[in-house]
Amino acid sequence: MRVVRLFVVGLGAVGQGLMRLLKKKREQYARELGLRVELVGVADSRGVWTGEDLDPEEVLRVKSEHGTVAEVGEEVEAVQAMEDVEFDVLVELTPTDIETGEPGLSHIMKAIELGRHVVTANKGPLAVAYGEIMRAAEENGVMIRYEATAGGAMPVFNLVRETLKSVDVLSIEGVLNGTVNYVLTRMESEGISLDDAIADAQSRGIAEADPSMDIEGWDTACKIVILANSILDVPCTIDDVDVTGIEDITPEAIRIANERGYRIKLVGRADRDGNLVVRPCLVPKSDPIARVRGVMNVVRLETDVAGTIYVSGRGAGPLETASAVMSDIISIAERASREG
Amino acid sequence: MRVVRLFVVGLGAVGQGLMRLLKKKREQYARELGLRVELVGVADSRGVWTGEDLDPEEVLRVKSEHGTVAEVGEEVEAVQAMEDVEFDVLVELTPTDIETGEPGLSHIMKAIELGRHVVTANKGPLAVAYGEIMRAAEENGVMIRYEATAGGAMPVFNLVRETLKSVDVLSIEGVLNGTVNYVLTRMESEGISLDDAIADAQSRGIAEADPSMDIEGWDTACKIVILANSILDVPCTIDDVDVTGIEDITPEAIRIANERGYRIKLVGRADRDGNLVVRPCLVPKSDPIARVRGVMNVVRLETDVAGTIYVSGRGAGPLETASAVMSDIISIAERASREG
Repeated sequence: MRVVRLFVVGLGAVGQGLMRLLKKKREQYARELGLRVELVGVADSRGVWTGEDLDPEEVLRVKSEHGTVAEVGEEVEAVQAMEDVEFDVLVELTPTDIETGEPGLSHIMKAIELGRHVVTANKGPLAVAYGEIMRAAEENGVMIRYEATAGGAMPVFNLVRETLKSVDVLSIEGVLNGTVNYVLTRMESEGISLDDAIADAQSRGIAEADPSMDIEGWDTACKIVILANSILDVPCTIDDVDVTGIEDITPEAIRIANERGYRIKLVGRADRDGNLVVRPCLVPKSDPIARVRGVMNVVRLETDVAGTIYVSGRGAGPLETASAVMSDIISIAERASREG
Repeated sequence: MRVVRLFVVGLGAVGQGLMRLLKKKREQYARELGLRVELVGVADSRGVWTGEDLDPEEVLRVKSEHGTVAEVGEEVEAVQAMEDVEFDVLVELTPTDIETGEPGLSHIMKAIELGRHVVTANKGPLAVAYGEIMRAAEENGVMIRYEATAGGAMPVFNLVRETLKSVDVLSIEGVLNGTVNYVLTRMESEGISLDDAIADAQSRGIAEADPSMDIEGWDTACKIVILANSILDVPCTIDDVDVTGIEDITPEAIRIANERGYRIKLVGRADRDGNLVVRPCLVPKSDPIARVRGVMNVVRLETDVAGTIYVSGRGAGPLETASAVMSDIISIAERASREG
């Protein structure tokens, strides 16, 4: 039986979702894929807990009871603990910082330096340093996977990498932020103001306490940067994106657009010429981009020889996002064992 | 540089599309993927032409001028020629026969027996003998890929295999036949009869001279069988599907449905309990399945931990379908070289 040993850094919603997923499906992976997934380290912002084969249910219990795994582990930095633990894959799930990419960037670079593979759901490091990370990974012969960064459970990077090998993608366009899309959907269907729609989203756990990253378009911009680097081979960072959010969208604007056959959507777009834009757009209702409702995301890929391809899926949700992380982990484990 | 040597059987629309694709992108694959794609044999129903590195443009010219490659090759059966040629991948693109799966089934079994990998766009063999083919492939250590069988350029098998590894798909539902969908779309938008819509589709090259496989639902049924076997682990054949086509759909039925907020779509559906159904359905207009227009296909995958995922793309078109075939060829070549 193959074994993959995980060091999971970050125990917020997605990290805890991953623990729940492991609890639910670890035995099935062993049985059906011949892959034993072992947890050899978990870390949050206060400390690290390491062990030979940690129980994900126990991790959830400790985190919920004490607020940190440092309580049963040690108050050390993850980058330091990583040096002392034998693991195969760093799973980087800390909060996104689009200014510095930290602390995720340091965690990822440390893992690469140690020759360990990386799976991340954290947009920050890739939005500020995609090229740097990929060069370091190549030099050290490690794999980096980041399916969850562009849209939770909507598969797009691996779709292109694994199933559109014969094809060149010419441009990428889509609705990439479930929170914003939920807010716009509510404003349209209820005729309510932006603030009321945000408050509603917050009450349902769809928007964060500070929703500015979403509303101002920066979350979508991060995703566009990663898609452009990864799929279009356009080297870029978050600074290269022309970003406008939905702060100034009114219910009146939505109503007038609606009457004329359009929906207002926050659309992110990238093409091979390096045009990178996020802005509210009037999208004809007949366009599949306009038809995505609520927390669903959608991406349209224009290709040279395969026509237009759409993918759509839930853009958020802890378990859904964790499933994308887990698919990346399995993919790395399978490839490593074939090559090793 | 890796080399993959192809034996292409079937030079209809998709076979010729593959020749055009090779002509267009062969040098790019060599340059960017380090993969040299060589054509060492082509066959149509009248004969076979083999050679060390056939020129796809020359194959197209011969086929167009003489109607068959037998003119420059030999009048032998493909199964016989396969024994005498060194090739890595059989590319099976002969016409679909859903009664016997022939001649594709014999071609595929012969290739497997010879220890060669198989890529096919031919639904017939898989719809009548999926289990048999996969068992033989496993015993002989060869790979079978068939992305183009379920919907031209809409990626679904490889999407699930490669990017949803952590997930169980619980059910599959979709609009899987572009011809039928085009016909229904025209009937709705123009208020015309089924026969007139079919004639229109025929004049545009979207429907075949005998469109009964599409209209009666059998093409969709084939796709459901392959999806159910491949993605849901439900062993089945075309005989297990409950099939109703769109023969009896009238413009009036479409109009009345439309007024009540529905569209009539030919929907194929499969679940883990082995329920396999193809039938015209009233689908609420708000459902993404209802929103796919013209020749586009769409599939909805319900999963256990990743929520609902949609994929949509062109269900037909020679170049688009050939691109799916080519992605499978590249995928096999890459995997074979990693393992070899």
